Amino acid sequence: MVKKAIKKPKSVKKGKQIKQKSRTTQKKSKTKIINFVSGNKNKLRELNDIFSENFKDIVVKQLDIDLPELQGLPEEIVRGKLKLALEKSKNLKGPVLVEDTSLCFNAYGGLPGPYIKYFLKSIKQEGLYKMACAFKDHSAYAQSIFGLQKNEKAEPHLFIGKTDGEIVSPRGQKNFGLSGWDPCFKPNCSKKTYAEMEENEKNKISHRGKSSKALIDFLKKNDDIFQ
Amino acid sequence: MVKKAIKKPKSVKKGKQIKQKSRTTQKKSKTKIINFVSGNKNKLRELNDIFSENFKDIVVKQLDIDLPELQGLPEEIVRGKLKLALEKSKNLKGPVLVEDTSLCFNAYGGLPGPYIKYFLKSIKQEGLYKMACAFKDHSAYAQSIFGLQKNEKAEPHLFIGKTDGEIVSPRGQKNFGLSGWDPCFKPNCSKKTYAEMEENEKNKISHRGKSSKALIDFLKKNDDIFQ
Repeated sequence: MVKKAIKKPKSVKKGKQIKQKSRTTQKKSKTKIINFVSGNKNKLRELNDIFSENFKDIVVKQLDIDLPELQGLPEEIVRGKLKLALEKSKNLKGPVLVEDTSLCFNAYGGLPGPYIKYFLKSIKQEGLYKMACAFKDHSAYAQSIFGLQKNEKAEPHLFIGKTDGEIVSPRGQKNFGLSGWDPCFKPNCSKKTYAEMEENEKNKISHRGKSSKALIDFLKKNDDIFQ
Repeated sequence: MVKKAIKKPKSVKKGKQIKQKSRTTQKKSKTKIINFVSGNKNKLRELNDIFSENFKDIVVKQLDIDLPELQGLPEEIVRGKLKLALEKSKNLKGPVLVEDTSLCFNAYGGLPGPYIKYFLKSIKQEGLYKMACAFKDHSAYAQSIFGLQKNEKAEPHLFIGKTDGEIVSPRGQKNFGLSGWDPCFKPNCSKKTYAEMEENEKNKISHRGKSSKALIDFLKKNDDIFQ
């Protein structure tokens, strides 16, 4: 859409052309782009849904680059992802956005944390519960961190959403939502697991619901991230 | 040493200079460098010990670059490390060498694997044993992979050393060797844990002993990796 608007109109009168240019400029300045590094199209769609409820002029686009996945603490991973993404994508229009999700067992000092996807794949939801049962303390927290950065020289902004709960024997729809571990995570504020909740109900208390809200609040106050 | 040898001798007669040059060239061609990416000075020393027993002309030098640690399967991690190291270090003399160590629980589909260091730090040796006890199958394998690559265009060579065993209640000297999980890994071929073995005894059957041997055998037959 933006590309089309920049294109010069052919064979038009000077006056008309100027008028059209001015319209174009108005349109151009209104559409703001956020470049989201993710191979997960559901996450992209979900983000665009949330953004369209909050902004008329922000579009989240997928930034299709091949980034290595990093080890480390969740915050370090997010900062590292931003750094690598900005190194690889020069002259981007708009800031870069990344996200990292963790499921952190307190008895394991926050692990599996960012490696939860590998554990889920290997031992499934039942296995995660068994793993938690190796220790008395079954408490855990789900965490989502968005990282937003304007360019390589700018500071990264981190938006953390955390929901405390516990690891339980899996129950609820197994394929609900984006996280395969939803059936074995029960937030403290509810009797239901993530997988037993309606999407709306979950979004209000979920880790990603909270991190998205923090990101949106920031964007509402900091329009200069797009300049 | 190499740098010194390349330096031209000052104020010498032509004949002597040529003689010296020829000696220099001989020396230069004899010293082969391997650039080992590791912040662990013990690993560097250990490698140089093994190399000096096998080669007169190979020196392992530390390649001091800041590389992000990668997620993934052990083989992928090693390939990724090589790629990043070679991207970051242009015009190196000699190939790049990296290594990755994993402790893989079979009941966890090979996990914690490359993330074992974080688990060890968080839940200590006792915790690793508890984690294994969440499942009936306590079998595990220790794995070391060396990756060697001549330059960005060349193919990476991987040298895998694997030792099968089981996770046991920790016993033996807790700070033995390089791996903090030594007290809770008992190879199948012994009644002792890694931590209860003498260094020589361990080197003969250990994962790193095997991967080092494979690397050395390769280097004995493939001198062109230095050209």
